[in-house]
Amino acid sequence: MTSSPIPGFHAIVPAGGAGTRLWPLSRAGHPKFLLDLTGSGRTLIQQTWDRLVPLTGPDHLLVVTGAAHAQSVGLQLPDLPEANLLAEPSPRDSAAAIGLAAAVVAHRDPDAVVGSFAADHVVRDLPAFQAAVREAVATARTGPVVTIGIEPTFASTAFGYIEAGPALAVDGAPSARRVTSFVEKPDAQVAAGYLAHGGYRWNAGMFVARADVLLGELAKHRPQLHAGLLELAAAWGTPQRDQALAAIWPGLEKVAIDYAVAEPAAAAGEVAMIPAEFGWDDIGDFASLADLLPDDTHEGRVRVLGETEHVVVQDSEGVVVATSGRLVAVLGLDDVIIVDTPDALLVTTRKHVQDVKSMVERVRAQGRSDLA
Amino acid sequence: MTSSPIPGFHAIVPAGGAGTRLWPLSRAGHPKFLLDLTGSGRTLIQQTWDRLVPLTGPDHLLVVTGAAHAQSVGLQLPDLPEANLLAEPSPRDSAAAIGLAAAVVAHRDPDAVVGSFAADHVVRDLPAFQAAVREAVATARTGPVVTIGIEPTFASTAFGYIEAGPALAVDGAPSARRVTSFVEKPDAQVAAGYLAHGGYRWNAGMFVARADVLLGELAKHRPQLHAGLLELAAAWGTPQRDQALAAIWPGLEKVAIDYAVAEPAAAAGEVAMIPAEFGWDDIGDFASLADLLPDDTHEGRVRVLGETEHVVVQDSEGVVVATSGRLVAVLGLDDVIIVDTPDALLVTTRKHVQDVKSMVERVRAQGRSDLA
Repeated sequence: MTSSPIPGFHAIVPAGGAGTRLWPLSRAGHPKFLLDLTGSGRTLIQQTWDRLVPLTGPDHLLVVTGAAHAQSVGLQLPDLPEANLLAEPSPRDSAAAIGLAAAVVAHRDPDAVVGSFAADHVVRDLPAFQAAVREAVATARTGPVVTIGIEPTFASTAFGYIEAGPALAVDGAPSARRVTSFVEKPDAQVAAGYLAHGGYRWNAGMFVARADVLLGELAKHRPQLHAGLLELAAAWGTPQRDQALAAIWPGLEKVAIDYAVAEPAAAAGEVAMIPAEFGWDDIGDFASLADLLPDDTHEGRVRVLGETEHVVVQDSEGVVVATSGRLVAVLGLDDVIIVDTPDALLVTTRKHVQDVKSMVERVRAQGRSDLA
Repeated sequence: MTSSPIPGFHAIVPAGGAGTRLWPLSRAGHPKFLLDLTGSGRTLIQQTWDRLVPLTGPDHLLVVTGAAHAQSVGLQLPDLPEANLLAEPSPRDSAAAIGLAAAVVAHRDPDAVVGSFAADHVVRDLPAFQAAVREAVATARTGPVVTIGIEPTFASTAFGYIEAGPALAVDGAPSARRVTSFVEKPDAQVAAGYLAHGGYRWNAGMFVARADVLLGELAKHRPQLHAGLLELAAAWGTPQRDQALAAIWPGLEKVAIDYAVAEPAAAAGEVAMIPAEFGWDDIGDFASLADLLPDDTHEGRVRVLGETEHVVVQDSEGVVVATSGRLVAVLGLDDVIIVDTPDALLVTTRKHVQDVKSMVERVRAQGRSDLA
């Protein structure tokens, strides 16, 4: 049965990042992962829960989030055990977040396999996703750190890429391949080359590994960070936790897990990949969000997040509207993006979706940090 | 003294028209004349009052408006005598509205000179306006129907034009000329020809005449309408008023005063004109509204109706924003017009300001007449 939990598998969900390019929907105070950005009725972190819990069961799913959002996460995920909600006193990047959760899991279950999956991505093909995770876990049991490589659908410059190496022979993981290298976000020309080459995959930050392997890689490449995380994990669930957090957390190195673990491990030939295609998107900006919205209304001329009947368009194509209940009327503008929230309105175009981030800086500079 | 009232002069202010092209600021329920569209702190009808009262005194200014708006007008113009607020049971166009007021004035003061001035226009140069009205009244006393011809500042296709004839010799009205004809809204080519010719003026619907002359013209060209209006005027201010209104008003011909009086009178050589230039605008659409807003903020890249600090722009020129208190952020759009009201938002461009009218039809067609 593909829907039964995978024995010994634990999912780690780092829930961080404000999603600034989705402002004003997404704010520091109510970040992207807490929002229902696809109109499904479930927020992104709830959808993440929905697709992982069949693979882990509720007791083997951990969320790591900022202290400010822990309560909201708990309310949105009522079946998440309290002990599995790890609140960070301050942001210390993904190696600390995922490493802490891996250390906590390893403390509970030394033979565990852990997998990290962002709280604010979407996946449209659940069976394909779950099949890929099963292959990744099967591969991870044989030793390597395993990543899931997303089949690129266009020459994106917004993602890092994974270069595939030769096929591996792993029981239960027919697609497994070695990873030659991780490469940073490319420019447009390089990205086009990757797409034409066919051997490159998007890095969606999905890493699966035996907890002891992951921690071993951390110990090898970031020994101080590793030591701090083990000390924290030992105190977790004890009365000493808060004291340990206060003493250790602020001193932990801020580093992404890609740099701390994935890249050096790949260079050493210790990373495998499961290539997969399951309708993945990180909803990085409004253009990406638009592609996830239905286009079956207004003769396909507008995509709406919210109630379609609140939108009226005329002489306009390629319009994207997020409504908050008011009527939004668009006249004579193509490819415009209108994001209507109760206290802030953004009007921009598909061409400018990457610049929303600097717009938010401007809003802050204009003294409206309350809205940023 | 130019600021003293003109003896025997009565101003008639027809306050009608929803200003559909200014939707969603302007609605059937709160039309243009009730709004402060220039950020001056006074609504358009209040500004109309402010510029006419010095010429008439408060007792000689009459407002004719729809029954639905009579209360709002009364609240906005607390010094308007109740007997000078004429409420129409239903809209019957300008000949009935202005004719009724003229008949009411004539009943009170047979030697009166009346002048009609729309409730929703703006005038920037008050002394020039008042000087023109004084010339118009002086000319009207000598017999003709007098119009004020606005110096065209561009080849507008939104206004009718007045063709100037030879100069007249009138005491106290050195600029007075005969009118050769009134011409309908021209196409762009014809409008350009008028502008180049120099002998054409915009028709702003300002008519000044002895009440007996105006009513005489109505009697000549629209005898049934004239008879009905006289009957109503006789009942005005008596207990029979409501009964007379119910019996007569619905049967009155719906016709514009331009067609009913001005055009035939001009054809008969009975219309004079005072050419004038006083920063007039009918705020017919958002492009026109934009020109009235200050451009001294955001380095001139945006004009704001409302609080300037609620607007943030980036990579955008020629932006027009009407705010209702929320933050409005504009990124990467030139010549865009954003009209933000609590229950409806319009996003359009300067090129499409004329099409707002059909947009409102669409809003109605989509079942949202409550917002139209």
